[in-house]
Amino acid sequence: METSIYARGLETMNQVVGEAGARTRDHLRAILPDFERMLVEFPFGTVYSRPGLDLKTREIATVAALTALGYAIPQLKVHIYGARRVGCTEEEIKEIMMQMAIYAGFPAALNGLAAAADVFAEEKREEAQATW
Amino acid sequence: METSIYARGLETMNQVVGEAGARTRDHLRAILPDFERMLVEFPFGTVYSRPGLDLKTREIATVAALTALGYAIPQLKVHIYGARRVGCTEEEIKEIMMQMAIYAGFPAALNGLAAAADVFAEEKREEAQATW
Amino acid sequence: METSIYARGLETMNQVVGEAGARTRDHLRAILPDFERMLVEFPFGTVYSRPGLDLKTREIATVAALTALGYAIPQLKVHIYGARRVGCTEEEIKEIMMQMAIYAGFPAALNGLAAAADVFAEEKREEAQATW
Amino acid sequence: METSIYARGLETMNQVVGEAGARTRDHLRAILPDFERMLVEFPFGTVYSRPGLDLKTREIATVAALTALGYAIPQLKVHIYGARRVGCTEEEIKEIMMQMAIYAGFPAALNGLAAAADVFAEEKREEAQATW
Amino acid sequence: METSIYARGLETMNQVVGEAGARTRDHLRAILPDFERMLVEFPFGTVYSRPGLDLKTREIATVAALTALGYAIPQLKVHIYGARRVGCTEEEIKEIMMQMAIYAGFPAALNGLAAAADVFAEEKREEAQATW
Amino acid sequence: METSIYARGLETMNQVVGEAGARTRDHLRAILPDFERMLVEFPFGTVYSRPGLDLKTREIATVAALTALGYAIPQLKVHIYGARRVGCTEEEIKEIMMQMAIYAGFPAALNGLAAAADVFAEEKREEAQATW
Repeated sequence: METSIYARGLETMNQVVGEAGARTRDHLRAILPDFERMLVEFPFGTVYSRPGLDLKTREIATVAALTALGYAIPQLKVHIYGARRVGCTEEEIKEIMMQMAIYAGFPAALNGLAAAADVFAEEKREEAQATW
Repeated sequence: METSIYARGLETMNQVVGEAGARTRDHLRAILPDFERMLVEFPFGTVYSRPGLDLKTREIATVAALTALGYAIPQLKVHIYGARRVGCTEEEIKEIMMQMAIYAGFPAALNGLAAAADVFAEEKREEAQATW
Repeated sequence: METSIYARGLETMNQVVGEAGARTRDHLRAILPDFERMLVEFPFGTVYSRPGLDLKTREIATVAALTALGYAIPQLKVHIYGARRVGCTEEEIKEIMMQMAIYAGFPAALNGLAAAADVFAEEKREEAQATW
Repeated sequence: METSIYARGLETMNQVVGEAGARTRDHLRAILPDFERMLVEFPFGTVYSRPGLDLKTREIATVAALTALGYAIPQLKVHIYGARRVGCTEEEIKEIMMQMAIYAGFPAALNGLAAAADVFAEEKREEAQATW
Repeated sequence: METSIYARGLETMNQVVGEAGARTRDHLRAILPDFERMLVEFPFGTVYSRPGLDLKTREIATVAALTALGYAIPQLKVHIYGARRVGCTEEEIKEIMMQMAIYAGFPAALNGLAAAADVFAEEKREEAQATW
Repeated sequence: METSIYARGLETMNQVVGEAGARTRDHLRAILPDFERMLVEFPFGTVYSRPGLDLKTREIATVAALTALGYAIPQLKVHIYGARRVGCTEEEIKEIMMQMAIYAGFPAALNGLAAAADVFAEEKREEAQATW
């Protein structure tokens, strides 16, 4: 049964944060494997896999919250990438960053936008390579 | 032209946070009227009135961010109320709170849920009075 | 198997935060029962029940963190009460608050101390009633 | 020598936060007297009594920081009162709150303004009593 | 009329953060030009250009707040540079950082001081080049 | 007498954070020597040297708090190193990080673990050199 929460979590995690999530899991398995299991089971196997909100809405909420918190730039980048994967446009993500200036101030919004610009540029590099 | 940003802001602010926003504006007019103007013009007249995201999505992002920040309970209540007005169900709002446990911890999520329960109870009291 | 994580979590939660935890669970069951389950299963059934740290050390870490975060006073009170239940003296808890002035500033430390004084006074009221 | 840091701290603390500081000291003496000593000696005896910034500038910096942090409302009120005592006008304090909307968001600024309005109203009540 | 808020904001922004602000604006124009407009119009055209506080006092409040928030190092550097441009001495800025240890803890103060040391060293490099 | 607080602080600081603390002190002496003195006297000479908690417990509280705050990675690394020096095992430190996911969210815990992995790797490099 625990295995099935892990399996469901892995499926949802792959769907949302794909390669970026796989790198986090590899990193954790080398430091603290039990925490890799928790990361798959609780956020993705227990919360994200619930039917109450679609994945795009969940990623919008997460991108907003991580931008507002200000100190979680690596995780914000993973979820900007995730938001793109589950259907957010670049414009929608930039609107959220702009809106966070109201609630968490301009510095949080500016650092969020810089993170988004990095992720979008990386996406374009990968697309360019893929079309070769 | 400035008047028109204010007018557009007032219309959007009324649409989103209605009576709760009007109380904030009254309070500000008594302390610092220029800040009442800024509150209408920047968040609502400049950001919320942009076409890039619908109001329901904007309120989901705001409720997520204010829950994560943890210290902005009065404003969180105003925006839980606003989220309900622009189309969020109680269940959607509770899903967001639950999801914030992942990104900002269980205390922030628990305090967000308590704020939501207060707003939902108040809505029910007002509906009960209205049907009399 | 899930039931057993819940059962283990309930046992650990009762051991650490006793009545205060029971009130939180009752409150959650009335608003969002699935979150009551998560609160029992993840923090208590998955993390606190691990053998790597004894419960007293876990509560010291939690009291330190909640004091530093500053906005989680209701949860801080629950864990000051929990720290006392798993073996912390009043003096040890006050030392932690004092130490937090270094890392999170005097306001966080002062608000933590005020929360501790409330919990200690409540303990004394209950003891006085119990000896009647 | 330690006594003299305490004495210098007490003088500066009285000059800046007067009665409000005395209440905090009384409260601390009843819970954790060594922390009362630290509060007098480090913030006031060691930092505030330095010649590098005048007390009005120090209180402007403190009011700005506590407003931005968002969770330290009791201490913010003490320092709004202190700022008034060392020469800030109500208008200057309100300008700082407004400015914090840029750096920490509108909720932090709105809660700071509400704290300022409370302190200003309390000042007026006391003046009214004093003129009787 | 909007243009004039932008023009006034640009003038104030240039006066306060000069080259550092110009780099931020260039960066924003490439990602999200509407946000460049908001950054000029709201913080600088609407708040900083008000007569209630002089620019030096405004920069002291901003440097204090950004140091206390802890996660906004790029913006803190811009405003340390700005504080110097509108008349703060290195000593005054270091006093503010030291004072923030009281309200936000030693880590925030230490990171603020490191940012200040970087900005001061950069200033000296530029002066050395200019005197060649 | 002041000298003796400094001397006691230096002894405690060396005991807890050793070389890492010495680097911080050197850095501060070059920027703001009076703050070097405060860092030795207040955190280490006044708080850490008190008998109420042993140094291992103090470092557990500090590592927990700095992980939860999220933005103080350089200081967190110094105190992970310190925690190891006063008797924490790698496993205990990783348990604290994992536990912080509950109270401050997974991003804070993940960034704390990454900091711990860096410190542990550095320890192993130094041991490898020392055995040559």
